[in-house]
Amino acid sequence: MKNTFGNNISVTLFGESHGEMIGAVLDGLCAGVKIDYDLIKKEMDKRRPSGKISTQRREADEVRIVSGVMNGYSTGTPITVLIENTNTKSKDYSLLKDTPRPSHADYTAEIKYHGFQDYRGGGHFSGRLTAPLVAVGAILTSALADKGIYIGTHIKTLHGICDRDFSSLKDDVALLSDKLFPVLNNECEKAMTEEILRAKEMGDSVGGILESAVIGLDAGVGEPWFDSLESTLSHALFSIPGIKGVEFGLGFGFADKYGSEANDPFVITNEKICTKTNNNGGINGGISNGMPIIFRVAVRPTPSIFREQQTVSLSKMENTTLKIDGRHDPAIIHRARAVVDAVTAIAIADAVATAFGTSYLGG
Amino acid sequence: MKNTFGNNISVTLFGESHGEMIGAVLDGLCAGVKIDYDLIKKEMDKRRPSGKISTQRREADEVRIVSGVMNGYSTGTPITVLIENTNTKSKDYSLLKDTPRPSHADYTAEIKYHGFQDYRGGGHFSGRLTAPLVAVGAILTSALADKGIYIGTHIKTLHGICDRDFSSLKDDVALLSDKLFPVLNNECEKAMTEEILRAKEMGDSVGGILESAVIGLDAGVGEPWFDSLESTLSHALFSIPGIKGVEFGLGFGFADKYGSEANDPFVITNEKICTKTNNNGGINGGISNGMPIIFRVAVRPTPSIFREQQTVSLSKMENTTLKIDGRHDPAIIHRARAVVDAVTAIAIADAVATAFGTSYLGG
Amino acid sequence: MKNTFGNNISVTLFGESHGEMIGAVLDGLCAGVKIDYDLIKKEMDKRRPSGKISTQRREADEVRIVSGVMNGYSTGTPITVLIENTNTKSKDYSLLKDTPRPSHADYTAEIKYHGFQDYRGGGHFSGRLTAPLVAVGAILTSALADKGIYIGTHIKTLHGICDRDFSSLKDDVALLSDKLFPVLNNECEKAMTEEILRAKEMGDSVGGILESAVIGLDAGVGEPWFDSLESTLSHALFSIPGIKGVEFGLGFGFADKYGSEANDPFVITNEKICTKTNNNGGINGGISNGMPIIFRVAVRPTPSIFREQQTVSLSKMENTTLKIDGRHDPAIIHRARAVVDAVTAIAIADAVATAFGTSYLGG
Amino acid sequence: MKNTFGNNISVTLFGESHGEMIGAVLDGLCAGVKIDYDLIKKEMDKRRPSGKISTQRREADEVRIVSGVMNGYSTGTPITVLIENTNTKSKDYSLLKDTPRPSHADYTAEIKYHGFQDYRGGGHFSGRLTAPLVAVGAILTSALADKGIYIGTHIKTLHGICDRDFSSLKDDVALLSDKLFPVLNNECEKAMTEEILRAKEMGDSVGGILESAVIGLDAGVGEPWFDSLESTLSHALFSIPGIKGVEFGLGFGFADKYGSEANDPFVITNEKICTKTNNNGGINGGISNGMPIIFRVAVRPTPSIFREQQTVSLSKMENTTLKIDGRHDPAIIHRARAVVDAVTAIAIADAVATAFGTSYLGG
Repeated sequence: MKNTFGNNISVTLFGESHGEMIGAVLDGLCAGVKIDYDLIKKEMDKRRPSGKISTQRREADEVRIVSGVMNGYSTGTPITVLIENTNTKSKDYSLLKDTPRPSHADYTAEIKYHGFQDYRGGGHFSGRLTAPLVAVGAILTSALADKGIYIGTHIKTLHGICDRDFSSLKDDVALLSDKLFPVLNNECEKAMTEEILRAKEMGDSVGGILESAVIGLDAGVGEPWFDSLESTLSHALFSIPGIKGVEFGLGFGFADKYGSEANDPFVITNEKICTKTNNNGGINGGISNGMPIIFRVAVRPTPSIFREQQTVSLSKMENTTLKIDGRHDPAIIHRARAVVDAVTAIAIADAVATAFGTSYLGG
Repeated sequence: MKNTFGNNISVTLFGESHGEMIGAVLDGLCAGVKIDYDLIKKEMDKRRPSGKISTQRREADEVRIVSGVMNGYSTGTPITVLIENTNTKSKDYSLLKDTPRPSHADYTAEIKYHGFQDYRGGGHFSGRLTAPLVAVGAILTSALADKGIYIGTHIKTLHGICDRDFSSLKDDVALLSDKLFPVLNNECEKAMTEEILRAKEMGDSVGGILESAVIGLDAGVGEPWFDSLESTLSHALFSIPGIKGVEFGLGFGFADKYGSEANDPFVITNEKICTKTNNNGGINGGISNGMPIIFRVAVRPTPSIFREQQTVSLSKMENTTLKIDGRHDPAIIHRARAVVDAVTAIAIADAVATAFGTSYLGG
Repeated sequence: MKNTFGNNISVTLFGESHGEMIGAVLDGLCAGVKIDYDLIKKEMDKRRPSGKISTQRREADEVRIVSGVMNGYSTGTPITVLIENTNTKSKDYSLLKDTPRPSHADYTAEIKYHGFQDYRGGGHFSGRLTAPLVAVGAILTSALADKGIYIGTHIKTLHGICDRDFSSLKDDVALLSDKLFPVLNNECEKAMTEEILRAKEMGDSVGGILESAVIGLDAGVGEPWFDSLESTLSHALFSIPGIKGVEFGLGFGFADKYGSEANDPFVITNEKICTKTNNNGGINGGISNGMPIIFRVAVRPTPSIFREQQTVSLSKMENTTLKIDGRHDPAIIHRARAVVDAVTAIAIADAVATAFGTSYLGG
Repeated sequence: MKNTFGNNISVTLFGESHGEMIGAVLDGLCAGVKIDYDLIKKEMDKRRPSGKISTQRREADEVRIVSGVMNGYSTGTPITVLIENTNTKSKDYSLLKDTPRPSHADYTAEIKYHGFQDYRGGGHFSGRLTAPLVAVGAILTSALADKGIYIGTHIKTLHGICDRDFSSLKDDVALLSDKLFPVLNNECEKAMTEEILRAKEMGDSVGGILESAVIGLDAGVGEPWFDSLESTLSHALFSIPGIKGVEFGLGFGFADKYGSEANDPFVITNEKICTKTNNNGGINGGISNGMPIIFRVAVRPTPSIFREQQTVSLSKMENTTLKIDGRHDPAIIHRARAVVDAVTAIAIADAVATAFGTSYLGG
């Protein structure tokens, strides 16, 4: 339903980049879940721009919880988070209503809302709205952690530079939890940062691939057919601006494999049923099989670049060019990681609540 | 909602592989849409197994429409399609309840339904349930065609063998409409068929990549955030058994591009606003921009192979091996194409109805 | 969503009065619930016309379950019930398309579906579609009974003739379970039957009030605000044709009371918290309080009467008269009771599944 | 979905009586609807307590719109309204957690949220949350008025005192639009006010019946079966605290009528199809027939009375008594009227958007 996601645990998102505030309503979380304010701040920090590799728009991003929490615990009724927009420069954007930025939502919003959209800084389509998603995601992340379910995401590749593969997932997920720049191989941070700065100097931008793991999820989560775990996770992931691909397990790598190479044999390990390999990313028939959930998402290079681009004037219906200024990210992949973690927490929490009941997460 | 997909136009799916019948309920299609029975049959034929490259289970797949249609037109109330299962051999499968087939839903269904699931031939998780999806998809396909919206899918790669790229989309989509084996380059059919047969001889299976185009869709379809076109299309696509990756436009190919290479400049062509390139697959900010929607899905090699595989005995909790017999597909990608077309029609029809009103498709 | 009701346990309804068959899909019921075929038949019999007080259209109403059940137990996947229409006389109705029957859906369907609706015997709007509702309701009724939750409905008044009030609810609900004509005071059956026959002789029809009790429901079921028990129950109840009023507890009787008369004091009885009175019908703040749920519904007299009525010719846009023949009920209230029980079971089962998890009903 | 109502136009409600703020998110309203701030204020004033007949808690109830509106018009994306709680006296309520007030949600919330609920002043269940409902309802009210659809509600009866019946609906609805105390017969205001004050003096409270009319709604709005207009309207109405009955047209009055008295004959008046009577309240088969929608709701006397009442101590599990102080309404029916208007606007707007497309309300 448009700006609402989820069945038993749902999130409703609102706000615009240059409006007064942005926020989200989290409904369905059971009563008695401790709110970990430090974790919210930690996750918000992962998403916040910092250093030279991100936009110079710097928001305090203070998360106010104005409903659904009392004495530090969820009350069971809707939790609303609000984040004020303080550092807005709306004059930067007035030109863009007539000359839409390529590969942004400027043009499609103009068509859909026939001129009434909030066009300032991407309006409702701005990546800025991922901030409340991260906040509510963090609330669910701690609820999931209480049941032994952990989520971690690293930059698998950034414009050709590769991080190492996941190895010991438990350690890797713990490692990523504390990293602002999410790579497993420490040396990658420098190389990737330099690559982002190189792009920045050229007035350009770069993208890459994020890889995520969900560990500790019991078998039996997910529904047949339309609410398969792949369906609901991808639904949530593709709602993040700039995500253009999602694959589970081997994903597109399955295309060159034989079935005998691709199948994951069942084996008993420590008196538990596991699979020897995990090519299917922990999901069979849309339902978790007890192995880690593994997926990757493709992150487009940021469309806001400083080089001159071709576009059209909507009022004159003629070709023209556009050279934007303002404050933009030469890469968002390192920040998008917190958003991927957040929407994964939302989708997994909802799937868990559907499979085991909403009280499961507070029990 | 589990076995229901869609907001304004919805599909509810039911049945099991070896039950009495399978079917689907299509709700929300407006009154007055002509039912093209020939098209239903044509699409069903594309999905039906034929020749040596598919399972030897041959069903008549006669589609009965038992509600929602009168005198050849939709009445506006739910359309129910039923397909009988006639050619079932339930004894083939009894062993599989205790020794789950690797990478099938046997194990996860056992956990989720704790032994009460219909385990015969995959039960509710069987690819057989895609038959009613194709039937209702075909009904929507002709409704969309009346508004100039067409869908086409080809096998982009099969186990390393590549079809040619899309060129003139209008011609290519028309070409694919009549093809049982969906390739653009005729020579690929032979090579791919041989590759499937080679795998079959080895008791193995192969997968590949399907590529789809939706042409004629106006700009302005899709919703911000959680009902982005990518979100709803991927949701529907990942509900198809065996789909493990979905990408739009360049998809994972974005990872190595600069923003300046990836962005699609706007240009005016024939007094219409287009983009010079279509790297974003016709979608900006989750909303159609008037260019063709382009996406690819990764199809896993069929997990039902005839080679001996490792698995476990659930009753004895010990490792064992499994060598299945019965009737299975050495590849499903050529058949999955009709299912991809169908769920695409469902997701696009729902998005169009949401954007323009349900009466749009009958107007 | 139009023809689907429910969140965690949902029912999708399809079919037309004179189509090939009617049916429903029940999704979300957990695996392992025993299907009580005798109860399904018993509930269907309560709804079936019999004797002189009901329509002479007599259908076998054989319920076929074609999915979601194996070896007599629910599998956890969608349960589909089908009922064939065998005793249709479509010629009876052809006139009604142009001259809509007063207070039927003939006119509104014509407007909504602009002539494409199935107009035969009320089509999709026919009371006949309550048959599959009763069938799926019966499946849930036995699942609820396994958790000690029972539903009973009696005719509170029929055209001025009153049954006695509920007294010992446990006994009364058990008594009603076995009654085809649902009154608590046996003498009422004769009086009410005679009243119906009197109306029939006059070519007229009568209505009344049904009163229902749900006993054994734990406190804590129902959600705040929009999914209050009153909201979801009334939503389901008002979908039954001919229901024009719903009230809980004292209902409209609250209008003349002081708060001090209306409030239900809490008291401890047998170490359990109860209320001394039950004016609120077991619901406080939209949530069950552990007392019996009590509600009443107003049943309109059947609109299909045999007396000449004023109507219009849609084609000629002029006033005219209509005198219908065919087979109609002089009263439906005694049959509607089974439908009220059924949709109550559906709404309560969904609310219970939402509050306690879907596995609760199978545990 | 718990705190969200609506399909194409939806409202999500959040907040607690003594929390920082309360609010609602309105999604699905199309772009370009002028926001009538005066109307919002006017409707809020109708709901605000004033004089001696209402609670002495007096809130400014300033409505802030923090998203979805730019330059005075809807942008097409979610509209969020926030209302601060300024005049809270939380200490008034601390006792009530252990000794639940009869017929309030105190006890059911305690059970459902096992002690974590915000118990201050009714928390999330407080009538205070109807304030944001009124605000978003007012936004939709002006959108509906632009299409000629108007809503009006009067106090039909208050503790035995009756207002006159609706006569000329157009005039009556216009009259009510400007009335703070909603009666058609001016003399009733004094009598009803005195009755409320009498109850107040006794430390007691009174209820009554509200009657509403929706005029100007075209035929064809509403869906068959589960989204009948009666179903969706009653769903919304029963979510208002204190509403215990809903009836359409004659409602419970149908019980004593013959079909020949109850049916509404079709007649052509001024070249339009109307019904001679409107016993069915403008709805046939769940769909609007072009006549005014007429319904009544039963409003319970406020449960917060100042007389000593029986209740239990939850901690001691023993019977006790309770005598509340604090600030309470001796009647809410005159204030509930604005809430009934608001949720009617929400339900009708959603039904209209579903029937005619979301762009209808902005066109």
